[in-house]
Amino acid sequence: MEPDFSALDDYLDAVDADGYLVDAASDDSTQRYLSGFDAPDPFTTLYTPEGTYLLVSGLEYGRAKKEARADEVRRGSDFDMRGKMQEYGRYEASARARAEFLDEYEVESVVTPRRFPLGSADDLRALDVDVTVEERDVVTEIRAVKEDEEVEHVREAQKANEQSMHAAEDLIAAANVEDGVLHYEGEPLTSERVKEEIEVTLLREGCALDETIVACGANAADPHDRGSGPLEADEPIIIDIFPKNKSTKYHADMTRTFCKGEPSETVREWYDLTHEALDAALDAVEPGATGEDVHDAVCDIYQEAGLPTLRDDPTTETGFIHSTGHGVGLDVHELPHVSTNGEELEAGHIITIEPGLYDPDVGGVRIEDIVVVTDDGYENLTDYEIELVVE
Amino acid sequence: MEPDFSALDDYLDAVDADGYLVDAASDDSTQRYLSGFDAPDPFTTLYTPEGTYLLVSGLEYGRAKKEARADEVRRGSDFDMRGKMQEYGRYEASARARAEFLDEYEVESVVTPRRFPLGSADDLRALDVDVTVEERDVVTEIRAVKEDEEVEHVREAQKANEQSMHAAEDLIAAANVEDGVLHYEGEPLTSERVKEEIEVTLLREGCALDETIVACGANAADPHDRGSGPLEADEPIIIDIFPKNKSTKYHADMTRTFCKGEPSETVREWYDLTHEALDAALDAVEPGATGEDVHDAVCDIYQEAGLPTLRDDPTTETGFIHSTGHGVGLDVHELPHVSTNGEELEAGHIITIEPGLYDPDVGGVRIEDIVVVTDDGYENLTDYEIELVVE
Repeated sequence: MEPDFSALDDYLDAVDADGYLVDAASDDSTQRYLSGFDAPDPFTTLYTPEGTYLLVSGLEYGRAKKEARADEVRRGSDFDMRGKMQEYGRYEASARARAEFLDEYEVESVVTPRRFPLGSADDLRALDVDVTVEERDVVTEIRAVKEDEEVEHVREAQKANEQSMHAAEDLIAAANVEDGVLHYEGEPLTSERVKEEIEVTLLREGCALDETIVACGANAADPHDRGSGPLEADEPIIIDIFPKNKSTKYHADMTRTFCKGEPSETVREWYDLTHEALDAALDAVEPGATGEDVHDAVCDIYQEAGLPTLRDDPTTETGFIHSTGHGVGLDVHELPHVSTNGEELEAGHIITIEPGLYDPDVGGVRIEDIVVVTDDGYENLTDYEIELVVE
Repeated sequence: MEPDFSALDDYLDAVDADGYLVDAASDDSTQRYLSGFDAPDPFTTLYTPEGTYLLVSGLEYGRAKKEARADEVRRGSDFDMRGKMQEYGRYEASARARAEFLDEYEVESVVTPRRFPLGSADDLRALDVDVTVEERDVVTEIRAVKEDEEVEHVREAQKANEQSMHAAEDLIAAANVEDGVLHYEGEPLTSERVKEEIEVTLLREGCALDETIVACGANAADPHDRGSGPLEADEPIIIDIFPKNKSTKYHADMTRTFCKGEPSETVREWYDLTHEALDAALDAVEPGATGEDVHDAVCDIYQEAGLPTLRDDPTTETGFIHSTGHGVGLDVHELPHVSTNGEELEAGHIITIEPGLYDPDVGGVRIEDIVVVTDDGYENLTDYEIELVVE
């Protein structure tokens, strides 16, 4: 992939900076995107309109030369890191090596991401490098608009995601109910057991994930609760899975809510309303609409039904208490926002639409699809039925 | 766990700062350690000698109140984030909310970790908060000395690690050789297949890992190459596994090198020498010795055998081309360094000892144990035999 960095060139020109500097490991997606390199420890990437240059440790040097999308790869020993460490200590040595590295490419002023390390910045400033935080998230904005290859990466991760959701639903379907609790193979079926099934399925599909949400009852009423313990019959079970393909590093994201047994009347109403909110939000997705327009479509549905939303009551702890969605790519949460103040949508944005309702007395309900914005609307990358009751 | 932060109090007093400020998600281990809270998106932790205070999003508020080790948890709406966002935009609104949050605890000056986000720092500075990077990694130093509970967490992760190493070794043992390539169940046995076995084993033991190294032949000659493709007979296969327990978040780390078939004379020599280097390094581990002393023990063995080391030739690309080890805990790489300039060891430090030799013409050999420094030496947390040839 050869991303189009012309917007970054324009930005550097507009703010009169020589380069864009990143100091991070590749779990920082801007680092990965700019460098095309995957390393577990921090390294330095310098982007200039003339080329992309990496400064890495000796340990990563060989691999970086082979794998990075860089015009040149340098290492500490090119700048006498050992001598500098003895003279100045570890941190000042790094700063001095980095300043010499910049100097070799005639870079005196750099713009950085907001999360550039303060220590590195202050040290460079002390060495008379002009370091300024970008006023907009320029590279993050570039990353938000996906190329076809990136859409395929998300699609592939989402297919694996759906397999793992099926594996979870199948477990719930195969469970029987004893004393109001789901049982499987003679044991109570727990959130943890369902998560393991999801994770093993994803692993065999080349995906990894740090977290999965399988939350039932009161757990489900907190949108970020990961869930634990036995799953209950007649209660909504929220399953939210957001894996990363280990090879491409792109994410997928989806949520379904299941109920084994007989949901309460309120849960049924909430589910149908949330399905309606999902459809209304999807209808609003097109280039030129904003993330806020899409969010408003959801809030309107809930508000008309008399349910609280954060839009209408910023302190509510029940009802619709999160954003409608977010961009997905190298990060599971990235631009654009699909919320109050959400940006204008562009073709190539990949976003989630995930309305939901929560109340500790009722539980929680959420339905989430992932879609790519197209020239004339959107394509839904999710292929999974929307059905509350699992038989 | 109630960590002892008196060293942090002393530091704040010495530099005349009111508090220690972290702005990070809990994948930042200093954030997790200070806050006792696990959240996927960035939040703010303020430590003062009087108490620990969190500022989180509305989405995390309920969980933070329940789970965080904090004297108070605040959220954006306590500081009118919505109004501020409309007036100032997202970033300045966050900075203003954070400044008011600091003001409520009478904090006018903060020290931060080196990797504190530059954007947050510069914005706070513009609001007259005094923000300075810590001169030493104070919290990281506190984290490096483990309490008994933390040692048990690492021990538990290491037990799972050993199970996954056994699973990998068993696969290699069960393989047969066809045309110089390992085969299992009629298919070439690949790095990827062995990694899957390791990962599924770890997952069932409650551990996660982003990366595993199963590297054979030329792959193994690059210490950070993860390995790919069919495994070859008569070649050294380096397996380096560094999982994180998903519940405690503590890591383990170990490496073994296996050979199916007949290793070359050089590989045998290298293996024995590396085993000798491991023993020499372990002998050097005790409180009061430095990480550099331990590293020197390894370098001395290799140097006496006429093999290049980075200590003696900073530009070498073959021989012993990495550090002897590193601290392990919430981070897989943390303090102390076990390398040139490595710090003085203290009881409670958990470190790896991982000598190795590399050459593209030979392959690679590495043996890694994980140990905890005790009052009178060390306890080896690794229980896995050291044996090159797999029958």
